[in-house]
Amino acid sequence: MHKPKQPKLVADWERLKKIFIRPEDDDCKEILVKYMEQILFGLHEFINRNVGVTEEISLKELTAGFQDTVINSDPEKKLAEVISDIISQIAPRAVNVASPYFVGHMTAAIPFFMVHLKAIVAALNQNVIKLETSKVLSVLEKQVLAKIHRLIYGFDESFYNQHVQNADTSLGSFTTGGTTANLTALWVARNNFFKPFDYIYKNTGGIDTGTASLNTGSESIDRIHAGIQLNNIKLTGKFDGIESEGIAQALKAYCFENAVLLVSRRGHFSLKKSGGILGIGNKNVIPVDVNAEHRMDVIRLLRTIKDIKKDGKTGIISVVGVAGATETGIVDPLDDIADICEEQGINFHVDAAWGGPVMLSEKYSHKLKGIERADSVTVDGHKQFFMPMTCGMVFFKSPLSMNHIAYHSNYVNRQGSVDLGIKTLEGSREANSLILDSALKIMGTRGYALIIDHGIETAKKFAQEIKNRDLFELITEPELNILTYRMVPPEIRQRLSSADIDEKKRLNAQIDQINIAIQRKQREAGKSFVSRTRMAYGGMVEEVVVLRSVIMNPMTNIKILNEVLDEQERILKSLDYILKNDTLLSFTGKSPSV
Amino acid sequence: MHKPKQPKLVADWERLKKIFIRPEDDDCKEILVKYMEQILFGLHEFINRNVGVTEEISLKELTAGFQDTVINSDPEKKLAEVISDIISQIAPRAVNVASPYFVGHMTAAIPFFMVHLKAIVAALNQNVIKLETSKVLSVLEKQVLAKIHRLIYGFDESFYNQHVQNADTSLGSFTTGGTTANLTALWVARNNFFKPFDYIYKNTGGIDTGTASLNTGSESIDRIHAGIQLNNIKLTGKFDGIESEGIAQALKAYCFENAVLLVSRRGHFSLKKSGGILGIGNKNVIPVDVNAEHRMDVIRLLRTIKDIKKDGKTGIISVVGVAGATETGIVDPLDDIADICEEQGINFHVDAAWGGPVMLSEKYSHKLKGIERADSVTVDGHKQFFMPMTCGMVFFKSPLSMNHIAYHSNYVNRQGSVDLGIKTLEGSREANSLILDSALKIMGTRGYALIIDHGIETAKKFAQEIKNRDLFELITEPELNILTYRMVPPEIRQRLSSADIDEKKRLNAQIDQINIAIQRKQREAGKSFVSRTRMAYGGMVEEVVVLRSVIMNPMTNIKILNEVLDEQERILKSLDYILKNDTLLSFTGKSPSV
Repeated sequence: MHKPKQPKLVADWERLKKIFIRPEDDDCKEILVKYMEQILFGLHEFINRNVGVTEEISLKELTAGFQDTVINSDPEKKLAEVISDIISQIAPRAVNVASPYFVGHMTAAIPFFMVHLKAIVAALNQNVIKLETSKVLSVLEKQVLAKIHRLIYGFDESFYNQHVQNADTSLGSFTTGGTTANLTALWVARNNFFKPFDYIYKNTGGIDTGTASLNTGSESIDRIHAGIQLNNIKLTGKFDGIESEGIAQALKAYCFENAVLLVSRRGHFSLKKSGGILGIGNKNVIPVDVNAEHRMDVIRLLRTIKDIKKDGKTGIISVVGVAGATETGIVDPLDDIADICEEQGINFHVDAAWGGPVMLSEKYSHKLKGIERADSVTVDGHKQFFMPMTCGMVFFKSPLSMNHIAYHSNYVNRQGSVDLGIKTLEGSREANSLILDSALKIMGTRGYALIIDHGIETAKKFAQEIKNRDLFELITEPELNILTYRMVPPEIRQRLSSADIDEKKRLNAQIDQINIAIQRKQREAGKSFVSRTRMAYGGMVEEVVVLRSVIMNPMTNIKILNEVLDEQERILKSLDYILKNDTLLSFTGKSPSV
Repeated sequence: MHKPKQPKLVADWERLKKIFIRPEDDDCKEILVKYMEQILFGLHEFINRNVGVTEEISLKELTAGFQDTVINSDPEKKLAEVISDIISQIAPRAVNVASPYFVGHMTAAIPFFMVHLKAIVAALNQNVIKLETSKVLSVLEKQVLAKIHRLIYGFDESFYNQHVQNADTSLGSFTTGGTTANLTALWVARNNFFKPFDYIYKNTGGIDTGTASLNTGSESIDRIHAGIQLNNIKLTGKFDGIESEGIAQALKAYCFENAVLLVSRRGHFSLKKSGGILGIGNKNVIPVDVNAEHRMDVIRLLRTIKDIKKDGKTGIISVVGVAGATETGIVDPLDDIADICEEQGINFHVDAAWGGPVMLSEKYSHKLKGIERADSVTVDGHKQFFMPMTCGMVFFKSPLSMNHIAYHSNYVNRQGSVDLGIKTLEGSREANSLILDSALKIMGTRGYALIIDHGIETAKKFAQEIKNRDLFELITEPELNILTYRMVPPEIRQRLSSADIDEKKRLNAQIDQINIAIQRKQREAGKSFVSRTRMAYGGMVEEVVVLRSVIMNPMTNIKILNEVLDEQERILKSLDYILKNDTLLSFTGKSPSV
């Protein structure tokens, strides 16, 4: 970073004023626009130069220039320098997630207009926590939430007329991502489950006959305690709700020893984390096994629920189904889960962070059948709505659900105000609804559907190609636009076919090592990128390493995917692995970098 | 919204490709740049036209155009139309937070380069949850966190050399705002307090002598149970930690009945909310009263701690001090609180969401003395670092603290990886560190200090002006750049001076109504904006309505603030209030709008 001779930059009041008062004269305007041009096209050219994913570089090399921890007193650089540094120093060492060869994660190219829209949001810099700092943007947010709510739940016109701009009700909320969307949904579910009461329970000495009367909420306690034997415990008095009193008191008040969440084994790790954060304990986030198709096994779900309910000591806060699992793209049998939850009186949440926008496709929206029966739904904006990082959303079937998490204060979110911050996990939030609203206007549902359909159909072709190739084994079929597979060298495949269980284990461990090496080497080569994970398949208990492809970039086509497979075949051939005494002895090549 | 005759827009593959592949030819480039120009200067002109805050409009009028809840199938608009709609329809109904007359909330003008930087972040669209989707941006984030950590804690060079790029340790994390930063800090504190153990406790029949040995973490259980009588309860066996087992089990394992957080009464409502979310119960977030200077009363703090510890049934997870209270800008006596926490072996968190950047000022950083003794500190980027919405940060004195919230999964954040998403509340996150890093380079600490100093000194002048005016009463002196005051009509002020307690109450209720009316009318007039809140002052138990000014915009000066007061005086005179039988009978004017 050679510095040309320049007058030293100093922080002074004149310079500061120039920065805060946007420049008036045409010269200054021109310069500002030129910077934006650099951003739009300088970064663009980097992307064009680097068709593949990113520069090959080790973590050690990467961190070398980022060790200094002292902030300069005087200004070091002008905006122009900062921008050109970013273009020359940062961008080449970032990941070109926009490449159609980047098919490993749920991050891809976004339409160019998203950059413009994000710039607008920054320029307006509204804070939608309250009306006083956002005004029309709060109103727009409610409208956009109603639009997506309608897409999910499809209630009638009069329902939406009543709620779209209703200050007392909420159809959902924008969040900063899928994790906080799931957390919000489960926070609401937890608080609804352990809601406040004020009653005297007439003890009938056996099964709860539900004669207790609640004076809060619209539901009666019948539903909550349906089928639970109360062991002659007398439920009396007043409980202020779990949000106020905490979990230990809540369990006591409801005569439970424990509370759990039931989640598909393929559920995102944010669900387990939510159990931890919410004080339920993440070991009480109980995974429900999947069937051979990698969907939640509803027979097991029902059995688990009945087992848990048997002794009446454990409350089930929610069952979570997944619509577009992170690893496989699989959609759980939502209608069946809804049946069970309805019958058992249990809250039903759907994590559709990935799959939600499939509802925009006339051709494939049926895959999410049953989602309209969920009590709450998570959808991400920065995934298949192709918004810039980050934007999540959570929706509730009942416009009253979010009252369970309302917070007020004297300075914002006063009681009775229309401030959106009353019922959100986050505090200050940017006006992301403006981006989604604009994108929906520019794309229409059909524009989004084109991308969704293309992803699903390209993934199907890709799966066929994998099956056609001898060196590959498809692990999960693409229900949506995600699939998993692995490479199996012919000599191991042959042995595998006749192996007993122990032998299979050993061989799979070898295949794991090979696939880890292939994924790393391909990533390091920097032309294309698939990710990897581990999962059980084909009735095995043991997990194996699988390669994972996410086809979300509309520019990714089967030709490109074939190139990705070709490269993997070449890497496999280059691997100097030695199969000897059932042990994979060594690989050539330098040690893996990042 | 009259539509000119135009060919109907359709969603087709060609159009989609154009959107995703950034345009190559010069014509297209020119158009994209022109759009950005519109954004930079079209919005700018709106701001210039509307010197004041925003258009006067009722909530009913405001929501009128935002009722439709159906998403169009075909594209409705092109980007150019969307942008001009935003400039003509949305911007005038947004809040001009950039106006120097907007002194009511912690949202203000941001330097123009922030829009460029936000556009860069969107164009790169990295996801810092993992290295595979962010690479150098993960590395940069660690560096920027170390820079701010050093500003707070000022450890020596070798400490930062060891940790700045250490994949196993964390100095803090970027969050999406102050609320999730506080939540993260208290989540860590909760998990540290109820950490896992595996030991046999030798019961000595009285005071815990601390002979138990822990096999996890670096601290011994001595500190946690210091001074707590265990009532002959035998602590034996194994506990997996609160994150895994949940709060009810944690309380049992540690022989507590309850756990609490102690927070300054002036603490932000996110602290109470955190208690609710974390399962502690928000009634267990215990407010510690403030003294006459509106600072946490440390004598009361110590008394509260001793009272709580007396029976050994309640664990104190953390004491939270505030550095720049939302309502008053007051800084709690951090050094005194640190003394108490050290002596009592209690975690100490500082919410410096607002005040943190004051550390950049040579002149005023001493006001935060003691912050370097906190176990964790919250700082917001979108407040006094003047970043666009939203960016928060949380820092931990110990580089190992964040291990308490580590989560792994097979597909991201694998054990041993350097993925930043392992130890964050949020999942996917944008690369906000690039904005802060660039801003620090452009501004230098001295550039920021100029703004900080200007705010504090202008607030002092403003306070003097309020004291000089007969119609006003200063409620809280500006320790930093926030102050509160109220208007008191002379006829009421006179009565107030000789009133007994009951009479004072009645008169204050009247003054409240007048101040509410003034704040509303000024907001509606749209030229300037102060906010209002309620607080107790001057030894009274009852809260009164106060007007609140936040002087963060460097373009806000005493001349502008005098105009704000002049306008309030004019509004007071125009109020047709009738004081009769101690009752404020009526106001003229239409009913308050938003």
